[in-house]
Amino acid sequence: MTRRLRLGMVGGGQGAFIGAVHRIAARIDDRFELVAGALSSDPQRAQASADEAGIARSYASWQEMARAEAARDDGIDAVAIVTPNHLHAPIATAFLNAGIHVICDKPLAMTLEEGEALAKLAREKNRLFALTHTYSGYPMVRHARELVDAGEIGDVRVVQVEYAQDWLAKPVELTGENRQAVWRTDPKQAGRAGCLGDIGTHAYHLAAFATGMLPKQIVAELHTFVEGRQVDDHIEALLRYENGARGMLWASQVASGAENALRLRVYGTKAHIAFDQENPNELLFTPLGGAMRKLTRGRVDSAIARHATRVPPGHPEGYLEAFAQLYKDAALQIEAIDAGLPLPEESRLLTTVDDGVAGLRFIDAVFESHAKLQWQDVQNGG
Amino acid sequence: MTRRLRLGMVGGGQGAFIGAVHRIAARIDDRFELVAGALSSDPQRAQASADEAGIARSYASWQEMARAEAARDDGIDAVAIVTPNHLHAPIATAFLNAGIHVICDKPLAMTLEEGEALAKLAREKNRLFALTHTYSGYPMVRHARELVDAGEIGDVRVVQVEYAQDWLAKPVELTGENRQAVWRTDPKQAGRAGCLGDIGTHAYHLAAFATGMLPKQIVAELHTFVEGRQVDDHIEALLRYENGARGMLWASQVASGAENALRLRVYGTKAHIAFDQENPNELLFTPLGGAMRKLTRGRVDSAIARHATRVPPGHPEGYLEAFAQLYKDAALQIEAIDAGLPLPEESRLLTTVDDGVAGLRFIDAVFESHAKLQWQDVQNGG
Amino acid sequence: MTRRLRLGMVGGGQGAFIGAVHRIAARIDDRFELVAGALSSDPQRAQASADEAGIARSYASWQEMARAEAARDDGIDAVAIVTPNHLHAPIATAFLNAGIHVICDKPLAMTLEEGEALAKLAREKNRLFALTHTYSGYPMVRHARELVDAGEIGDVRVVQVEYAQDWLAKPVELTGENRQAVWRTDPKQAGRAGCLGDIGTHAYHLAAFATGMLPKQIVAELHTFVEGRQVDDHIEALLRYENGARGMLWASQVASGAENALRLRVYGTKAHIAFDQENPNELLFTPLGGAMRKLTRGRVDSAIARHATRVPPGHPEGYLEAFAQLYKDAALQIEAIDAGLPLPEESRLLTTVDDGVAGLRFIDAVFESHAKLQWQDVQNGG
Amino acid sequence: MTRRLRLGMVGGGQGAFIGAVHRIAARIDDRFELVAGALSSDPQRAQASADEAGIARSYASWQEMARAEAARDDGIDAVAIVTPNHLHAPIATAFLNAGIHVICDKPLAMTLEEGEALAKLAREKNRLFALTHTYSGYPMVRHARELVDAGEIGDVRVVQVEYAQDWLAKPVELTGENRQAVWRTDPKQAGRAGCLGDIGTHAYHLAAFATGMLPKQIVAELHTFVEGRQVDDHIEALLRYENGARGMLWASQVASGAENALRLRVYGTKAHIAFDQENPNELLFTPLGGAMRKLTRGRVDSAIARHATRVPPGHPEGYLEAFAQLYKDAALQIEAIDAGLPLPEESRLLTTVDDGVAGLRFIDAVFESHAKLQWQDVQNGG
Repeated sequence: MTRRLRLGMVGGGQGAFIGAVHRIAARIDDRFELVAGALSSDPQRAQASADEAGIARSYASWQEMARAEAARDDGIDAVAIVTPNHLHAPIATAFLNAGIHVICDKPLAMTLEEGEALAKLAREKNRLFALTHTYSGYPMVRHARELVDAGEIGDVRVVQVEYAQDWLAKPVELTGENRQAVWRTDPKQAGRAGCLGDIGTHAYHLAAFATGMLPKQIVAELHTFVEGRQVDDHIEALLRYENGARGMLWASQVASGAENALRLRVYGTKAHIAFDQENPNELLFTPLGGAMRKLTRGRVDSAIARHATRVPPGHPEGYLEAFAQLYKDAALQIEAIDAGLPLPEESRLLTTVDDGVAGLRFIDAVFESHAKLQWQDVQNGG
Repeated sequence: MTRRLRLGMVGGGQGAFIGAVHRIAARIDDRFELVAGALSSDPQRAQASADEAGIARSYASWQEMARAEAARDDGIDAVAIVTPNHLHAPIATAFLNAGIHVICDKPLAMTLEEGEALAKLAREKNRLFALTHTYSGYPMVRHARELVDAGEIGDVRVVQVEYAQDWLAKPVELTGENRQAVWRTDPKQAGRAGCLGDIGTHAYHLAAFATGMLPKQIVAELHTFVEGRQVDDHIEALLRYENGARGMLWASQVASGAENALRLRVYGTKAHIAFDQENPNELLFTPLGGAMRKLTRGRVDSAIARHATRVPPGHPEGYLEAFAQLYKDAALQIEAIDAGLPLPEESRLLTTVDDGVAGLRFIDAVFESHAKLQWQDVQNGG
Repeated sequence: MTRRLRLGMVGGGQGAFIGAVHRIAARIDDRFELVAGALSSDPQRAQASADEAGIARSYASWQEMARAEAARDDGIDAVAIVTPNHLHAPIATAFLNAGIHVICDKPLAMTLEEGEALAKLAREKNRLFALTHTYSGYPMVRHARELVDAGEIGDVRVVQVEYAQDWLAKPVELTGENRQAVWRTDPKQAGRAGCLGDIGTHAYHLAAFATGMLPKQIVAELHTFVEGRQVDDHIEALLRYENGARGMLWASQVASGAENALRLRVYGTKAHIAFDQENPNELLFTPLGGAMRKLTRGRVDSAIARHATRVPPGHPEGYLEAFAQLYKDAALQIEAIDAGLPLPEESRLLTTVDDGVAGLRFIDAVFESHAKLQWQDVQNGG
Repeated sequence: MTRRLRLGMVGGGQGAFIGAVHRIAARIDDRFELVAGALSSDPQRAQASADEAGIARSYASWQEMARAEAARDDGIDAVAIVTPNHLHAPIATAFLNAGIHVICDKPLAMTLEEGEALAKLAREKNRLFALTHTYSGYPMVRHARELVDAGEIGDVRVVQVEYAQDWLAKPVELTGENRQAVWRTDPKQAGRAGCLGDIGTHAYHLAAFATGMLPKQIVAELHTFVEGRQVDDHIEALLRYENGARGMLWASQVASGAENALRLRVYGTKAHIAFDQENPNELLFTPLGGAMRKLTRGRVDSAIARHATRVPPGHPEGYLEAFAQLYKDAALQIEAIDAGLPLPEESRLLTTVDDGVAGLRFIDAVFESHAKLQWQDVQNGG
């Protein structure tokens, strides 16, 4: 067996949702061993969290952890960053500088400048910088991309993507009970983009991932429905693509009745495909003038889907397996980078720092269009 | 039994889809008897069509028909206008002037001016002017309106409406085989608004019908995907409402794989509702933080839904029954008007010339926003 | 235009559900004109009901109606029988003897002997005897039959059919409010088979219609869940077919939460098909090892489905249109019979007195298997 | 952190599906460490498989493994048995006798006698004997049980359960390529019950788990559709319960188009519930006369569902998480047993050797009813 990679974690202390998710995801395919952590900025809580998670080496700060792990022979190969958003950039910078691969929760950074600097640094240091856009780990999302790439839907004409939740429909951040609500609606910790940054970027990325296209112009609007909230809780946009395609994007955290309704449809000249995150084991494919087909892993012949699964057809997979897929691909890439080999072909769909930069550019364009009440170029490039 | 009302028809000759639909719809609830028609501008085809449809009095022109029927003691009570769009206004004008009630297919007219003139004339003449926005005849659409009115979803925050078809995904109008495609993509017969006028206005109306609200500002774009086509085949818009609500509207006739996918979702502070025209016997209702409920006629206690149905729960109704509902309500209103009585309460959801005027205002605003690349006021008023 | 056929009706007075349905169904395709009726055994109610329904000739009894209509030059061509079950046979006999075609609600008769006698009489008199197994009028049910006949699902292996309702889950017949519940649970009016006769035979027929096969052996059980009820309200059976296929049939009127859930699945060696009456515009088709396809009228190329529809794809049809289809086919056959011509090919799927006889044989076999607690031959024969 | 329990595995060498699944499931909640294995009866393959799985101690035989691990201070706490069925009993017996807890794949054993002996032994030795009826690990299945127990659906009247697959629709065992097909259709390795033992018992267990009831009488039939197959590939049964409830059970591995379609519906006097394994994040709940509700983890308030999940609402879980749940509960029970404490309340839904015995009794009753062509008592108990 290939050696398990040594993983560290920053953030994700007791009660934090996403840290526990990363830990399970890293475990599922057995390619990582979690050996070090700075799970909280409160040293006592950090230690207690590490004990609970069975982590051998607990650090009082991520700065110390980066230094100490870099110095060890058996130091961590990679770090998972699962803190609030404002810490992503400084922490990632420190670990990249320490020569340690980075697996970072999204959004990448607070500003486009920060994000671009991270991308530059990762390239200079030749370290992996994986960004956990989880939904791209689903086998049927990857198969969607494969169908688009293979021309099975023809030329893309219309992109419809949306992400609706209802957990912020009321001012739950005011009571303080919901810790996530508190930091995610605090511009100092979450950034100026609220719903836009938290889930709008997921929707944006999913559309980009499936189609391989970024919009070149948008008209967008941010809105805050809940009085007193400091960030947007709803965002909507029209999209124009280079090839003439059109799109619409909607994200809302006040959509009463919606749990985690991320949905994508892509209409091409030959067919359309539809994916619903809450029902991720299927991908609907409907040809022009034809009957809808419910594609599942077991009913398509796709090496890409097979690479992203671990159970037989008809046995549903879920969010944790999609997340695990990112860790599996990250392991493949880390081994290749450390061995000086090209990235394995089957791992190429792993989302990267560049996906994060694209998301930050989208955020900027939304704010600008919103302010000017008009269409706005998206700076994709370069 | 109340006397069956005498109905005439203009347009709807052999091979025309919508004329046959109107005839069935008028028959289902047995309130009309089709006795006169000018079914085609070609007199021979008019006669043959009338014979086939079992219509006693066939006219060579609608002008003659208006004159002759007005002069008869047993002349028609109402006329159904089912011609291409450019003839709606002149025909409706003639029959209103002849004192005959009008049931008109949508869109109302070629221009807002025409439409406003018709509205004025109908009021002056005190004649019914029903506009057949069919989808408002479904019991569960009417129940949606009832739920919104009753505050069951709280204050409306987000409106999502779309209407996708794929029958114009290729340039089928060029071959001439598809007669509908020919006239519907010809600005001289259909007006300058293609997809926008044909189905965009349906989507717009459905949202307005269910919420009781019209947007006050929009940003929109028209697009023509199929090369050489003279009108738009795709339209998308962002909407702002007076009460702060936001919305998105999409209509496309090139959406590969879509048959007749008119869908509405309305999110309020307390719940959201969702309707899908292709599955019209159910209305999904999902409370904030709660479980989705599949409402059906038989599982809600709604006098409004009962008024709009004719079979027991679990026995699906369809498009023809929704259409019949408009005829049923029109009959109720015609009888009341002729008797000098107030319109019956249960008939009040019948769509009218004013709905048509609102649709024409929307069309104008879309064109203007599209031209100026910016947000645009919608003139809802007066 | 072909002359509208003259139709009479027995039963279906004010408040009766199925009479009104027959009247609408007869009207939709405009092939019948309802001119005579004996709508109630109470002469006053008969007259009032006829007036309300706009029926010209009202009779105080069906006996008188049969005599009088047979004697008229413009007497009715056909009679629709929509009374409680126990009157089907005597009424049908009278009209057949008067040379009048019969369209009869199901079940055919109270006993197999009665049913066989009707079948014999109809043949002797060369009159149409249509039995309104409504669900066979849906275009997608007919397309299911077409797929089976064409070998598209291979050899039939497994048949799964069920019909679940919940309207008799409580003893609603005791309060007397629900008139249908009263007569349908009264063996004197409904026959000894309660749920079995009312909806079990629909399920049985649907399976037979789609597959073209009747079981040769069954093991079945009747059950009455509601205390004091005089007939069964639940029935279940295992089925064996001549070709080795196996099946299961379930019908229940105490299935809490079910509205009118008639569902059929047929598994062959090559594919399976699934139909759900509450969503009748689609037929699911899933090949062995392949992806499920949602077939709709507009997405299959089927002359049979086209013959059974009247609106374009994507415009849903429902129960009334399925019912109308039986009337349309009946009209085609009546015209052919009266003209001494062979039955038109496209009308051949109309359900007949023989379907009713098969249903009565099934009822007998269920009772016998239930009594003996063992497998039982079904007498399909002769 | 509680110490991770030490786990051994017998069976599950390279290429075996279920061994890999057990390993992931044991890992997800981090309560087990896989340290020993006898993964194949071929010693070389056993070693290679252990290396690949990162297992420290590889044994050439399970006999040796039982002896050696029992003798070690740091020997395994529990063994997972994932061999073909005929080895379950001897292996489980050996490990129980060695004082090691057992987690065994289903079916429990080849015969009822074997199964009963195992149940007796486990009790005598006071060791855990968990049987991995995976589907009982889904949060919404457990919530179904909770609803039934709480009387939310009233008294159970009708149980409908089915499990359909199509992977054995053709004689794939003959080619030898499909290793699973070979042993699962070989009576010597799989037992005399083919489809019945493999998936019929899953269906049977799911119904029993959700309702808390076992049938007292059945009439059943086994069938083999594929020529030359040595075991049944289709089974169907009618069920009678002590309380008067009725049921139907179907399992088939030749159901063309079905992937892994395990579905349960339970109708009570107040409501019915429906679960579909291929869409396991929802449970449909429909009250008598009321609207269907789609229950999800996040939209019910259930400590039982929360105990069986690890991600937030709207983030789907799947088969592996359901499986992991059994391992989580097994860990809780092993710790309690080893500490001499009562089993933790929240772990009580873990399936046990007694569930396996019930399954074997069902198998016997099916064979007997099939042979005698009549209703047959099921020996439940005591």
